[in-house]
Amino acid sequence: MRITTVGLDADDTLWHNETIFRLTQDRFRALMADVAAPEVLEARLAAVEKRNLSLYGYGVKGFTLSMIETAMELTGNAAPARLVSDILAAGREMLSHPVEPLPGVEQALAELSEHHRLVLITKGDLLHQEQKLAASGLGDLFVGVEIVSEKDAGTYARVFERHGTGAAEAAMCGNSMRSDILPALEAGAWAAHVPYPLVWAHELAEAPGEHPRFAELASISELPAWVRTVAQA
Amino acid sequence: MRITTVGLDADDTLWHNETIFRLTQDRFRALMADVAAPEVLEARLAAVEKRNLSLYGYGVKGFTLSMIETAMELTGNAAPARLVSDILAAGREMLSHPVEPLPGVEQALAELSEHHRLVLITKGDLLHQEQKLAASGLGDLFVGVEIVSEKDAGTYARVFERHGTGAAEAAMCGNSMRSDILPALEAGAWAAHVPYPLVWAHELAEAPGEHPRFAELASISELPAWVRTVAQA
Repeated sequence: MRITTVGLDADDTLWHNETIFRLTQDRFRALMADVAAPEVLEARLAAVEKRNLSLYGYGVKGFTLSMIETAMELTGNAAPARLVSDILAAGREMLSHPVEPLPGVEQALAELSEHHRLVLITKGDLLHQEQKLAASGLGDLFVGVEIVSEKDAGTYARVFERHGTGAAEAAMCGNSMRSDILPALEAGAWAAHVPYPLVWAHELAEAPGEHPRFAELASISELPAWVRTVAQA
Repeated sequence: MRITTVGLDADDTLWHNETIFRLTQDRFRALMADVAAPEVLEARLAAVEKRNLSLYGYGVKGFTLSMIETAMELTGNAAPARLVSDILAAGREMLSHPVEPLPGVEQALAELSEHHRLVLITKGDLLHQEQKLAASGLGDLFVGVEIVSEKDAGTYARVFERHGTGAAEAAMCGNSMRSDILPALEAGAWAAHVPYPLVWAHELAEAPGEHPRFAELASISELPAWVRTVAQA
């Protein structure tokens, strides 16, 4: 089986993302300590995010707007002085947070790029994802970067057609069953799941179970060997 | 001269955009009437937007965050009740504003699409631009959609390579001298400027003057004939 192209998710596959969101949520909880109990705040924020998802999409700017909206709702539109400014500052800090590749990423990508075309496939804010890729120093390893608003089977079919030789000769690697694995398999590609310790609730989904084109890897360091095995089968 | 591909800007070329921003600014001015004089508000908002541009990029979400930041600065972090919620609501309304093609757009695109590959090339929020294109009903006329974080000569070279036969056999049409015309000419493409009555200050730039590959058109309705002239030259 020829594998010409390897697709890689970005957030929580190549670098930390959910951790940064969780740290910001901790900070939000502290800012709102006098207003709402942690579980009330969390439930309300999740509800506001869900309500806004179709309008804001994925990314830090929409998340910041949702935090502000949550604060206004829970304070009855009378947020304490500085609260809104502090939330704005937290959002800006997320956008300018340093980006460091996760352990093993650089070596795995360098190895893969010797024999395969690497394509970055990610959701989120266009500009922010481009900035993170630039800051990571990994940009030169990719022949294509696709920042998309939704990851479904059609997305993977299009991207692997555009940058490679179709989904049947492509492998996708990412931390989200829902966004990276299931739709890539549906498109006919191979898919390797590399878990990240934290998963955003919205991205949770069941593993595909026994699937001939699926693998569960403990670390991205195992990806080159797995792709090699697939290519030699 | 063969013209295989025609690139089209979206906002204020195919549908209204700046008008919607100005209407929201009017509303912001009314909300802030007790806090700041209109010219103070405008100057501060422009400064905040400029400061945030490298972090937020282009689009409604970043603009909404900048309006909130401006309000917090001008009220000394003590915004009147409801103000922040009203700004959030104004932002959401911009995102769900109906999209209607500008006069002449549908016919011009239908005519052009008979002989050329049409590619949409636009800045802004990824999800929002996709949603506007879908709502406009123009989506089927385009063979490619490129939502980019910056429009420079390199962007046009890449896009016309990817979707056509290179910049030398492509024409770009848009309302912004700075983003649509000058960099497309620099990349070696042809370029037609169709002005929109309002221009965001950030997009202002001098016309290229006497340039062999440039045309100033009064309306997008003149675009098919101009492209025909170029192709026959």
